[in-house]
Amino acid sequence: MALKKKPVKGMNDRLPEEMEIRDYVIGLIKETYKSFGFSSIETPCVEHLENLLSKQGGDNEKLIFKILKRGEKLKIDEAKEEGDLTDGGLRYDLTVPLSRYYANHANELPSPFKALQMGNVWRADNPQRGRFRQFMQCDIDILGEPSNLAEIELILATTCLLGKLDFKNFTIRINDRRFLKAMAAYSGFQEKDYEKVFIILDKMDKIGLDGVASELEECGYAKESVEKYLQLFKEIKNDVEGVRWCKEKLQGFLEDEAADSLEMIITSVEHAKEAEFTIRFDPTLVRGMSYYTGTIFEIAMDEFGGSVGGGGRYDKMIGKFTGQDTPAVGFSIGFERIVMLLSERGYEVPSKREKKAFLLEKSLPKESVLKVLEMAKKEREDGKQVMLVKQKKNKKFQKEQLKEQGYTDIIEVYADSNFD
Amino acid sequence: MALKKKPVKGMNDRLPEEMEIRDYVIGLIKETYKSFGFSSIETPCVEHLENLLSKQGGDNEKLIFKILKRGEKLKIDEAKEEGDLTDGGLRYDLTVPLSRYYANHANELPSPFKALQMGNVWRADNPQRGRFRQFMQCDIDILGEPSNLAEIELILATTCLLGKLDFKNFTIRINDRRFLKAMAAYSGFQEKDYEKVFIILDKMDKIGLDGVASELEECGYAKESVEKYLQLFKEIKNDVEGVRWCKEKLQGFLEDEAADSLEMIITSVEHAKEAEFTIRFDPTLVRGMSYYTGTIFEIAMDEFGGSVGGGGRYDKMIGKFTGQDTPAVGFSIGFERIVMLLSERGYEVPSKREKKAFLLEKSLPKESVLKVLEMAKKEREDGKQVMLVKQKKNKKFQKEQLKEQGYTDIIEVYADSNFD
Repeated sequence: MALKKKPVKGMNDRLPEEMEIRDYVIGLIKETYKSFGFSSIETPCVEHLENLLSKQGGDNEKLIFKILKRGEKLKIDEAKEEGDLTDGGLRYDLTVPLSRYYANHANELPSPFKALQMGNVWRADNPQRGRFRQFMQCDIDILGEPSNLAEIELILATTCLLGKLDFKNFTIRINDRRFLKAMAAYSGFQEKDYEKVFIILDKMDKIGLDGVASELEECGYAKESVEKYLQLFKEIKNDVEGVRWCKEKLQGFLEDEAADSLEMIITSVEHAKEAEFTIRFDPTLVRGMSYYTGTIFEIAMDEFGGSVGGGGRYDKMIGKFTGQDTPAVGFSIGFERIVMLLSERGYEVPSKREKKAFLLEKSLPKESVLKVLEMAKKEREDGKQVMLVKQKKNKKFQKEQLKEQGYTDIIEVYADSNFD
Repeated sequence: MALKKKPVKGMNDRLPEEMEIRDYVIGLIKETYKSFGFSSIETPCVEHLENLLSKQGGDNEKLIFKILKRGEKLKIDEAKEEGDLTDGGLRYDLTVPLSRYYANHANELPSPFKALQMGNVWRADNPQRGRFRQFMQCDIDILGEPSNLAEIELILATTCLLGKLDFKNFTIRINDRRFLKAMAAYSGFQEKDYEKVFIILDKMDKIGLDGVASELEECGYAKESVEKYLQLFKEIKNDVEGVRWCKEKLQGFLEDEAADSLEMIITSVEHAKEAEFTIRFDPTLVRGMSYYTGTIFEIAMDEFGGSVGGGGRYDKMIGKFTGQDTPAVGFSIGFERIVMLLSERGYEVPSKREKKAFLLEKSLPKESVLKVLEMAKKEREDGKQVMLVKQKKNKKFQKEQLKEQGYTDIIEVYADSNFD
């Protein structure tokens, strides 16, 4: 009656060493965002299929784990399609559940509402390095705050967290969907083509200016527009100067407010940051999700060769659930990537407790056991982590194992041990 | 395009106040068991259906949320039964995943292995007060320790946790499956009838001695056996005296070792306990799951009018996965019940941070915003929780809301405010 030992495809068992880092990072995330006034929330892992399939999730909607209906016995042989058998699915992100949550509870929540949501999400992706079918997401959102105070606080809190984890020299890339649109309009692209143009622009990192130029031309856009467009990217500086330059150059296409706001975000973050990093205006930053309406940002970390988080303003999405637009800005942290980076660099969780082990002789008399229990209690009250174990035949190996687990102080206990 | 606002049936959104308690209790659980040398582990929420259906789960196996297979397109119209369409399901407890986990990783784990697993489980139960379709379980297990040191530490750690949550005057009921069997054998019941007898005995709390007697007789068991059986319960004291009395009385039916071990567990717990509670030998304690092989225990809490946790020794279960018997003792804490009890009695999480709010005038000039950001940073560095919010029209209401959230120190900030 041997059963399957391996976990299901693409999902992981977590060993104690990994869990120690995970638990520590989770605690630090909760602690840090709390200090900025964020509240923890939780939503169920199972969500209505119709919410999951509401076109907010992009390609993730193809990767849903669907759940058989419960209740009356299912008539499998009469079923024609998946919809006849399923009504729920495992969530693929935390954004759809957050929107539903806010729609359901806005009356009970403060405004603005600063929410921290951590939880597992599931995607039936093809597993590969750093990509799993169950993974933890960590979303931080401010709902109901139209001003850029929301962006400023999100970036400050998130970078503060990364600083506490000893990450240095990372970069916050920041842009605004309104800049993206204004640049495209200024260059003569038509509104209907914007999304396609942005998808190509998004490849700048990989294929460079010339690559973007030739792809745009291949798509049949006017050479004049393409040249005008690319000239902008050549001239724009990656700082507040660049933002101001855009404000001048894109007049008539870009609202002054958008430029002033972006400048203020960059200045404020530089002024009040609590970690070592750079914030860089990056007009080539696109971010895939079409629900973004304003500021967008991403954490670029050279160590990882990619992004470990990002987000932006999405003022229209909550309204799709509630019928009433609610300003919203969110940040999603790549929890799994951060844990992976920490593990790879041999990160040691700052341990607050000394570790002490008592190795008890196998048939220790009752009185001695009582004595050891008492000592262990006292050591714990003094703040130590105390392990009691029975001695094994191979005591040497046992002690080595304990040392590997960090038990530096190992006391062997025998019937004749005297602890008074 | 309005979407469904309510969560799926029987599963809950968690509001910030509830989450504050949950997060606190989770942190305390991890901290407390860690101080006893337990390690956190995690298993996927999705488990192989064949593992879930391996008859370890009792009635829970009827309550599984099954998940549609992924991969090739499903041929719904050709499917005859659920097994044609599903290969995974949401776990209904943490015991099956723990057994699989240990089978998969025993070589990488210390022995004995002291594991703490917290995570959601799902059961398609009919929702009612205190019973949900998604809920958090918290299991603590010691694998690979045959001696009663495992039972002693599990009970000490768990009661220490409850003490830290200000629970008092609860009772640990303790018994041993071997006592149950010995008492039945002594009274003349046949081995094949034990489980049926125990199911009736388990009702003692509700129907009393006489009720148990008449139900046993109704089932057709010999009057003599029933009387002999019940006489035992009348005579047994609920302490170590009772255990010793059984050792004498049940000679030939009960191994001495079982009685000595139970006596030692009770004595040790009384000696080294770190909370105010009673440990009581309770020969009527049955616990449903038939996989228990030795000690069984339960936390009885009058406040709740029932059990908030329990467990026991199950030396045969791991072997079903591994083919090799592994001694095991586990405790499952009723996390949701504990959180409910705390909420109902208005439990306030011990807050370490003072809370301070800055209420910013709506169009505060940039220089002032920078100044406030700087002050907030300093306050956070001093250990405070700092909230920045823009002033709203109804400032009075806004301040009341902040006070309700615990922001006792509220500073209004205007362009002409002087903070130097």
